[in-house]
Amino acid sequence: MILPDKVKRIIERLSEWPSIGPRQATRLAFYLVGRGNGSLREAVADLNSLQDIKLCENCFFVHENSGALCNICGDSNRKTSIIAVIEKETDLISIENTRKFNGRYFIIGPLSRLGVLGVWQKNRLDKLKTFIQRDLDGKADEIILALNPTTGGDFGATILVKELSPLANRITRLGRGLPMGGEIEFADDETLSEALAKRN
Amino acid sequence: MILPDKVKRIIERLSEWPSIGPRQATRLAFYLVGRGNGSLREAVADLNSLQDIKLCENCFFVHENSGALCNICGDSNRKTSIIAVIEKETDLISIENTRKFNGRYFIIGPLSRLGVLGVWQKNRLDKLKTFIQRDLDGKADEIILALNPTTGGDFGATILVKELSPLANRITRLGRGLPMGGEIEFADDETLSEALAKRN
Repeated sequence: MILPDKVKRIIERLSEWPSIGPRQATRLAFYLVGRGNGSLREAVADLNSLQDIKLCENCFFVHENSGALCNICGDSNRKTSIIAVIEKETDLISIENTRKFNGRYFIIGPLSRLGVLGVWQKNRLDKLKTFIQRDLDGKADEIILALNPTTGGDFGATILVKELSPLANRITRLGRGLPMGGEIEFADDETLSEALAKRN
Repeated sequence: MILPDKVKRIIERLSEWPSIGPRQATRLAFYLVGRGNGSLREAVADLNSLQDIKLCENCFFVHENSGALCNICGDSNRKTSIIAVIEKETDLISIENTRKFNGRYFIIGPLSRLGVLGVWQKNRLDKLKTFIQRDLDGKADEIILALNPTTGGDFGATILVKELSPLANRITRLGRGLPMGGEIEFADDETLSEALAKRN
């Protein structure tokens, strides 16, 4: 083949990234090569610096604090006892942007349409249970299942209701202001605020 | 804002890459963080290795040879005197995949709809002229303007015909088997082979 091995390798690598296909990966590789070594070094340094990023011990969101907690879990103004279970980091950002939620988060990871949790998701769930038992005397005020209104989200909700019922005074889901089949990160702030307000 | 600075910086950086918007950049950043430091280091090493990639002195395609020429320009079986002028590296790959072309390439870069060449494109063109004068005794057998059938490609062709006419026995364009407004890299091999065969 006509391409240098190093270019081929970066194309393969980039193709593994989510929602990047082989064609876009090829374009990106040529873009990176064509930009010259200065900006390539900058990109490498930025990527390298991600190694310092930690995941919050409580909610698994990213942070670079010296302690174990992210900015939200470390914020004493947030209600510890209201926990929104979400699938993705980007969902946290969308919900924060509504400024209508003052509780905390727990990132369970993307929920499979097969209706089962992965091993790492079970481990995360165990940590949530331990947290509720240790820090909330065994009961959260409310657990909001802020999951995508999709098959995966619905299956996940069933599992989570079963697992978490003994550990919460109430378990709610986001109001179905969200269009079925859609995804939280694409909802506008208003729709999402509505869904938060009408949770039931 | 809720995101660590290092994550914000990588999101900004990724947003600058072609055809990656801020939302995809955010997803990619979380993907990279979530993969753990082992695979992050691998990605960094791959990216770093791109610094060794050189551009061919003749055609400006990528290579990692010890000399100044890419695999195609260094291949004595290829006809030196038939030169396909292309806009992008990916166009070279598409044309190579047809196995119908045994000449060589010259990457002029994306042609602007404004109908002017950038300074770096003029520099590249000067190098092509020097090459023809020095290595081909002042005349190429044929220069194929394998440009996209778009406004930019048409304007570029006008410029290139004017600039290169004294330096080639004939200047051809790809047959208009290509749909107008389309792009070379999306053409299937058959259409592209046809267009090569019917060049005029």
